Amino acid sequence: MYIERIDSLMDLKKLNLDQCMVLADEIREALLNTISVTGGHLSSNLGIIEATIALHYVFNSPEDKIIFDTSHQCYTHKILTGRKNAYLEPQQYKRYSGYTNPDESVHDHFKLGHTSTSISLACGLARARDLRGDKSNVIAVIGDGSLSGGEALEGLNYGGAEIKGNLIILINDNQMSIAENYGGIYKNIKTLRETKGKTDNNLFKLLGYDYRYVENGNDIRELVPVLQEIKNINHPIIIHVCTMKGKGYDIAENNKEETHFVKPFDLKIGDIQKPVIGERYDVIIREFLIKKIRADRNIVIMTAAMPVVLALSKDVRESIGEQYIDVGIAEEHAISMAGGIAKSGGKPIFFTRATFYQRTYDQISQDICINNLPITMILINASIYAATDMTHIGIFDIAMMANIPNLVMLVPTNKQEYLAMLNWSIEQNKHPVAIRAPRNGVYYANYEVDTDYDELNKFKLVIQGEDIAVIALGDFYQLGEEVIKLMKDKIHINASLINPRYATGIDETLLKRISEDHDIVITLEDGILDGGFGQKISAFYGNSDIRVLNYGFKKEFTDCYLVDEILRKNRLQPEMIVEDIISLKEKISV
Amino acid sequence: MYIERIDSLMDLKKLNLDQCMVLADEIREALLNTISVTGGHLSSNLGIIEATIALHYVFNSPEDKIIFDTSHQCYTHKILTGRKNAYLEPQQYKRYSGYTNPDESVHDHFKLGHTSTSISLACGLARARDLRGDKSNVIAVIGDGSLSGGEALEGLNYGGAEIKGNLIILINDNQMSIAENYGGIYKNIKTLRETKGKTDNNLFKLLGYDYRYVENGNDIRELVPVLQEIKNINHPIIIHVCTMKGKGYDIAENNKEETHFVKPFDLKIGDIQKPVIGERYDVIIREFLIKKIRADRNIVIMTAAMPVVLALSKDVRESIGEQYIDVGIAEEHAISMAGGIAKSGGKPIFFTRATFYQRTYDQISQDICINNLPITMILINASIYAATDMTHIGIFDIAMMANIPNLVMLVPTNKQEYLAMLNWSIEQNKHPVAIRAPRNGVYYANYEVDTDYDELNKFKLVIQGEDIAVIALGDFYQLGEEVIKLMKDKIHINASLINPRYATGIDETLLKRISEDHDIVITLEDGILDGGFGQKISAFYGNSDIRVLNYGFKKEFTDCYLVDEILRKNRLQPEMIVEDIISLKEKISV
Repeated sequence: MYIERIDSLMDLKKLNLDQCMVLADEIREALLNTISVTGGHLSSNLGIIEATIALHYVFNSPEDKIIFDTSHQCYTHKILTGRKNAYLEPQQYKRYSGYTNPDESVHDHFKLGHTSTSISLACGLARARDLRGDKSNVIAVIGDGSLSGGEALEGLNYGGAEIKGNLIILINDNQMSIAENYGGIYKNIKTLRETKGKTDNNLFKLLGYDYRYVENGNDIRELVPVLQEIKNINHPIIIHVCTMKGKGYDIAENNKEETHFVKPFDLKIGDIQKPVIGERYDVIIREFLIKKIRADRNIVIMTAAMPVVLALSKDVRESIGEQYIDVGIAEEHAISMAGGIAKSGGKPIFFTRATFYQRTYDQISQDICINNLPITMILINASIYAATDMTHIGIFDIAMMANIPNLVMLVPTNKQEYLAMLNWSIEQNKHPVAIRAPRNGVYYANYEVDTDYDELNKFKLVIQGEDIAVIALGDFYQLGEEVIKLMKDKIHINASLINPRYATGIDETLLKRISEDHDIVITLEDGILDGGFGQKISAFYGNSDIRVLNYGFKKEFTDCYLVDEILRKNRLQPEMIVEDIISLKEKISV
Repeated sequence: MYIERIDSLMDLKKLNLDQCMVLADEIREALLNTISVTGGHLSSNLGIIEATIALHYVFNSPEDKIIFDTSHQCYTHKILTGRKNAYLEPQQYKRYSGYTNPDESVHDHFKLGHTSTSISLACGLARARDLRGDKSNVIAVIGDGSLSGGEALEGLNYGGAEIKGNLIILINDNQMSIAENYGGIYKNIKTLRETKGKTDNNLFKLLGYDYRYVENGNDIRELVPVLQEIKNINHPIIIHVCTMKGKGYDIAENNKEETHFVKPFDLKIGDIQKPVIGERYDVIIREFLIKKIRADRNIVIMTAAMPVVLALSKDVRESIGEQYIDVGIAEEHAISMAGGIAKSGGKPIFFTRATFYQRTYDQISQDICINNLPITMILINASIYAATDMTHIGIFDIAMMANIPNLVMLVPTNKQEYLAMLNWSIEQNKHPVAIRAPRNGVYYANYEVDTDYDELNKFKLVIQGEDIAVIALGDFYQLGEEVIKLMKDKIHINASLINPRYATGIDETLLKRISEDHDIVITLEDGILDGGFGQKISAFYGNSDIRVLNYGFKKEFTDCYLVDEILRKNRLQPEMIVEDIISLKEKISV
């Protein structure tokens, strides 16, 4: 086994190319054995094993700097740079991030997780190197659909024309975004592929780049001579490398999209698509939208390469036809295009993960909110209970979006409320609306759910009590219920429970009314405290003698956290909250 | 005079092409006469007169929809669509927005002001039209450097390949961004121009577009036949129209960048560059940076097409050489590239208007803040005193940026403090830093200014008083001084005055200390209240009996506001604040 002897890049460089091919097979086996147990990015990593080996074989990291775009395809890189245990022993897997991380290795330059940034980062490294008069190679590895993102296009436009020294962009052409690719660039890449790089219609040359084509990017013997030839090149160049996503594992090769990221599965059975057990919001939303679409030709559902978050398989997408639009990784374009559709009387519904709305802040603010265009934005994974890696945490969206004027952000607490809000949003034509989906499980309403949300910022007083009012937003509503119950049990207070429903404003009438027979208000939100919902309540009561305690998360990036730990750290357990209330009550009565 | 007879587009269509050319001259004269009195976008509007006339001559607005990117070049469009008075009578000019505005006319489809969105918006209009099975033309007019923005590139990539029906993109090729153009696309556009559109290396064709070239875009007789030919075309097409920015006014033709936007000037003298009277932050910052750059080769100053906001003329830029980088309109690329430079040990300083940081939220959060890369971001016009049009208001940046973890946002109150903070930011290597420049004039410190800002969130207690503490952020510090003085005069209270200096966190030690001998805390900030600085103070005191009043702006988009009015509306006058304090004190003592 060669893999066992690879403790550093020096060990790789001792091998010959045939031995490297054996190593690639061993790495493939290790990745399959581990990811099938741990879950992770599967097909993207299987496809880029050979290219990663070839890069490290030819270049001298860390002097030569390799930037993996998004960095979800960095597993082989980690194996080669001293972290093979993560993939040889599944129990070690969690010790490392699934992305590049400079805290782990000098061979990792950035913590990354959102797509399309590698070319710009590489331009910066190259420019700083040239200013210093140094010589080294800077290599951006980009693929898997990331090229259609605005920043990648800005970087591509800039790099070829404006970087005067070495800049190597390796395009991993696996013919895929996460789902299909969209746009003219990919058509040109297809033409390049079909002509083995020989067509005169070469986008990259036209943008000022030199260009090389590697037909079999899963063959190290084909890759290495090309990389050796262009090593230390003195100008920007594109290396177009064709690879097969999922290479070497039948089920991944034939289900590239479904195996992009997988949960644990049985390697032999290949049960990558698990039956859904119990209710899930992705399926609930999907089924609701499909019904709506069939009844109304003006409805369009849109995404930016994220059909997976609503469990929209290829079959389902095809059945929707023209009313389904995937723009590829291009969130900015998607949001403004949705605005154009709304302006024309259509009913656009855009959906993606909450964290990716950050990529289109300006379009939401300028094109959508200034123009008050009625688009619906569905936020998936907007919760501490969702992705736990620091680049995908879902607790920043309220602070980011809910302070943009004109936006209506709805935060339902249960299934009926979610669907009522979604339906209202689709059918109204006055406001841009963002809706968070709960992530703490699918709860059913235990109060009457409204169908009309026209009266903005109208909170719902679900339980009328006294002394203490708990305002519990979204999927922390159930935490609010627990707090109420615990207070009753422990300190015999019948507290009030309020479902605020809107994160973008406050219900001044209700807040004034409860100030008459309550002296403590608790706010709970599944998001950061700074700039969040609770601080609006604190500010409202600032000139009164009502005491307000805000519960939510500290403003920080935490990587690979354990949910229970982070909840405890932020005193987000019913017992802790009731403790705080007891000590505040004691303080007041002194 | 034809212009006097143009009350609607019908009147335009009655003219023949020669008469249209006379009309163009009349419009040019009207624009010059008016803009020289009122100020406004000059050279960009002078260049596009003929193309606008030709578009409206051939197409039937509003059924055919024309979207002007950024819409700063919409003056001729406004003249032709019933709003000529704005440009014939300077006193009427202010009645209309300087941008397109659907509230003014059915021929305006969106309120726009940030660049690079028109193609995506047009794709949305086209897609909705096709879904309905309608027929009409959708035309995006884009130029002046906007093509290098990420969203425009995403839209360009999408439109040519994915829109199946009519989509017309008119590229106004005036060879300029606001300053120079950067990037490979512009190189290709240059090649197209040099070959009169005949080169085989045609980026637009390669992306799936049909293509037409118009050599003299300032000649209506050349434009109209081409537009007539492609009217009702059934697929996406690019019309590449060469125009001269500033056309017809010598001084504008020869000073395209300086006349992009002008203040009032004398038409005959052409005094477009006024001598600077008194101190101004743009010049102060520029001079400081030039000194720093000359002493340290690792410093790089960067912008995205906005050298104007630091008064960096072409001569000065050239004198800086390699240490000055303009990436063109491409803020996302700029920020991540700055991150790459910082990672490599360089000291990047990026500057642009505050409102444009919105365009790169995700890069600031992911590439910069998650990686804690020490870049300096200079925010210009982050204030109510700056641009008053709704797309450029400078009061949203604190809510947007200051809630991103790891970012340090500094808010100086005077010249010495600004420069001390800027210097600290450039020389430290631990934090990403954003610095707001005051906009209420250049004040000098009347307290000792610190040089070291390593101790984050350390507020400065400038005046130690009692009972009431005023925490006055940034350029509202002088308002704080006025409030303090007025309280002394009116209610004989010696209040405390605190300069918080940081917008990204609070000084818990100081806040606890002042809670001992103060019972009211006032916060003042030149930004919106929601998600802002003051709400962090309110939240901190939520569990105490300290009363907090937050002053700042309501979360809303206000267009073409008068500063005094908006200050009054938000009770941001010393007299009003003291009134509020008096009535709160009365309420407490009851």
